[in-house]
Amino acid sequence: MLGKHKIIALLTDFGLKESSVAAMKGTILGICPEAQIIDISHEIPLFDVRHGAFVLASAAPYFPKGTIFVGVVDPGVGTERRGIVVETENYLAVGPDNGLFSLLMDRERVRSVYEIRNEDLMLEKKTHTFHGLTIFSPVAAHLANGVEPRMVGPKIKNYIRWSIPKTMVKEGVIWGEIIHIDQFGNGITNITENDLEKIGVTYGSNIKIRIDGKRINSPFQKAYGCTKIGSYVCVIGSYDFLEISINQGNAAKKLGIKVGSKVKVERQIKIR
Amino acid sequence: MLGKHKIIALLTDFGLKESSVAAMKGTILGICPEAQIIDISHEIPLFDVRHGAFVLASAAPYFPKGTIFVGVVDPGVGTERRGIVVETENYLAVGPDNGLFSLLMDRERVRSVYEIRNEDLMLEKKTHTFHGLTIFSPVAAHLANGVEPRMVGPKIKNYIRWSIPKTMVKEGVIWGEIIHIDQFGNGITNITENDLEKIGVTYGSNIKIRIDGKRINSPFQKAYGCTKIGSYVCVIGSYDFLEISINQGNAAKKLGIKVGSKVKVERQIKIR
Amino acid sequence: MLGKHKIIALLTDFGLKESSVAAMKGTILGICPEAQIIDISHEIPLFDVRHGAFVLASAAPYFPKGTIFVGVVDPGVGTERRGIVVETENYLAVGPDNGLFSLLMDRERVRSVYEIRNEDLMLEKKTHTFHGLTIFSPVAAHLANGVEPRMVGPKIKNYIRWSIPKTMVKEGVIWGEIIHIDQFGNGITNITENDLEKIGVTYGSNIKIRIDGKRINSPFQKAYGCTKIGSYVCVIGSYDFLEISINQGNAAKKLGIKVGSKVKVERQIKIR
Repeated sequence: MLGKHKIIALLTDFGLKESSVAAMKGTILGICPEAQIIDISHEIPLFDVRHGAFVLASAAPYFPKGTIFVGVVDPGVGTERRGIVVETENYLAVGPDNGLFSLLMDRERVRSVYEIRNEDLMLEKKTHTFHGLTIFSPVAAHLANGVEPRMVGPKIKNYIRWSIPKTMVKEGVIWGEIIHIDQFGNGITNITENDLEKIGVTYGSNIKIRIDGKRINSPFQKAYGCTKIGSYVCVIGSYDFLEISINQGNAAKKLGIKVGSKVKVERQIKIR
Repeated sequence: MLGKHKIIALLTDFGLKESSVAAMKGTILGICPEAQIIDISHEIPLFDVRHGAFVLASAAPYFPKGTIFVGVVDPGVGTERRGIVVETENYLAVGPDNGLFSLLMDRERVRSVYEIRNEDLMLEKKTHTFHGLTIFSPVAAHLANGVEPRMVGPKIKNYIRWSIPKTMVKEGVIWGEIIHIDQFGNGITNITENDLEKIGVTYGSNIKIRIDGKRINSPFQKAYGCTKIGSYVCVIGSYDFLEISINQGNAAKKLGIKVGSKVKVERQIKIR
Repeated sequence: MLGKHKIIALLTDFGLKESSVAAMKGTILGICPEAQIIDISHEIPLFDVRHGAFVLASAAPYFPKGTIFVGVVDPGVGTERRGIVVETENYLAVGPDNGLFSLLMDRERVRSVYEIRNEDLMLEKKTHTFHGLTIFSPVAAHLANGVEPRMVGPKIKNYIRWSIPKTMVKEGVIWGEIIHIDQFGNGITNITENDLEKIGVTYGSNIKIRIDGKRINSPFQKAYGCTKIGSYVCVIGSYDFLEISINQGNAAKKLGIKVGSKVKVERQIKIR
């Protein structure tokens, strides 16, 4: 499956203040010295599996076929929670069985999910607090070395998986919700360009949004910079979803919205 | 122009909490798998083009000939603002035409500046909010693959460029200003060692500084650690400019100075 | 000593907001283009040599034989403080002679320590404020190129070195102290699993801890997640030391402990 470029891309909530991520990298390079290690993010909010799943799924499609993702956002480390390898058409993903790869699976054709059981692929070490180091990193490195995914353990079906909630489009109204708030305070909804087309919204249209009891009117534009600084602007962002934004401002803070906030979107018809 | 080591060095204001930088890296590796990606910084203050220009120009001269810089501090993304490739004697730089490469151009012999127009070198993607991903990263990767800079689009002359203000040295006085404040609170001026020589200041001299209405006296030393902890010390820092510092302290905070603060420097003559 | 994979792993307190770390990387790649540069951490608390020593020693053992570490936590830069190269059985370490490699030396068999004097291996540059750039990075890159450690300068014996304080185990009581507090607020002690065995504590035991005048009871478990969220839990963490933790909480903040806090540990005997 892999060519000579063995990319292993890491996502954790460990931060870079301690040695955790470096220990993972050293372990990977000890097993697969040719690995090209890329950091996706180590600043996922602590234990926020959904946030991690979103960031991972957003970055993954840009990586070359054969990339191995290691994801460690893992509040259940050391408990009965299993470790898994997800094999999709293009990628492998290694990490805890807690839904962290759910959105990656939404974007990819999933081939198989394996439970990690093969102790020969793990690090010999007593600690039970850091499977990112003792299990997921060495397993990823062995996969990069050409070990077949089925060698890690048995195929399983009952892994944990959740999905982005679906929008509802009815009578010129889209009902959706906020699924992610990025560091700039953009509120990313689950609403697609296709949803907007169904209610007749195209670039340059104005839209009415109701969110958490607040009403805003905003142009739908190609880019944040298409309105004046400080004004609301809605765009299809790099996540391919409608974002509620303020040009050079923080929309999430101003509106007090959070992940899960319900969003109602209508086309604004000009009176005259 | 490039040898077998294809370094692509990235500077953005995206932070590392989201998937943006990782998506750029994945895109680069998809086009040029041999690329060696180096992070300059992703923590440039949001939309602060001048800060980004300073950090980029400070790091660049240490990189090997042939390095390709990708800079994305880009408040105007998605507007009429053009994308450019700057070709200097030693480097290529890819990013928005907003002055981000001005200081790099000050330090390098500039050969040509090209406007990016060739859509064959861009990512096919609908989003208009993230040219770092859809334009600058793929263009840089194609350049690393050996695409000639002139293939990106027409040569232009009317790109945006600004310069570090010049000092004035007259009658034993240097008039300068603060051009950067680093994370440690060192105030970096536009004053060079050459300026100091003109007014007779050498290592070990004491200097009088007037800045934003405040007066300080400070020794001019080789290193911060040459005075006692908590004392003012002026050094020629790694930026090759005079820095106003406090040993293990934060001079910018204590003095309340900021970028643009005017600085007057004189040699302090000892009375007896 | 080195194979074809030339890993240079960096640890500094510079942060990634400025150009310092990038300038170091560019310098390394200019001298040794094949170097594989890995970041251990650039977020060591400013000038906190002991914290840096702990993080470095925690990450190092996971790296392949032949890795070259560059450590720059260096309040004394530019003073008489020497630069050194430490040669251990498995690694080289380059940085200031201020104790930063003390704990690495505890974990490794030390062969020799050399003072860096050979100016041919340094960068020609006037600044005296940034030896990470002008001395340690180029020396590390030359070592990666195969320069023998003894070429950097004379062997020395009187380098600075300190050690983790030893525990005392007596009459069923372990006397130890906090040696590190990680970003999650886990208090890492100097107490080993071996110490605990001596007082009869095994996984599942309950232990009594007295620390800074406070008393807590906690189970000794394999992993944080083995108690309920918000409860104290003691584990042997990835540092191989006893950690005082709260599952998904911040023990250090709650207990008000800091590095140096004395810890008294006893096995808790159940009454009935």
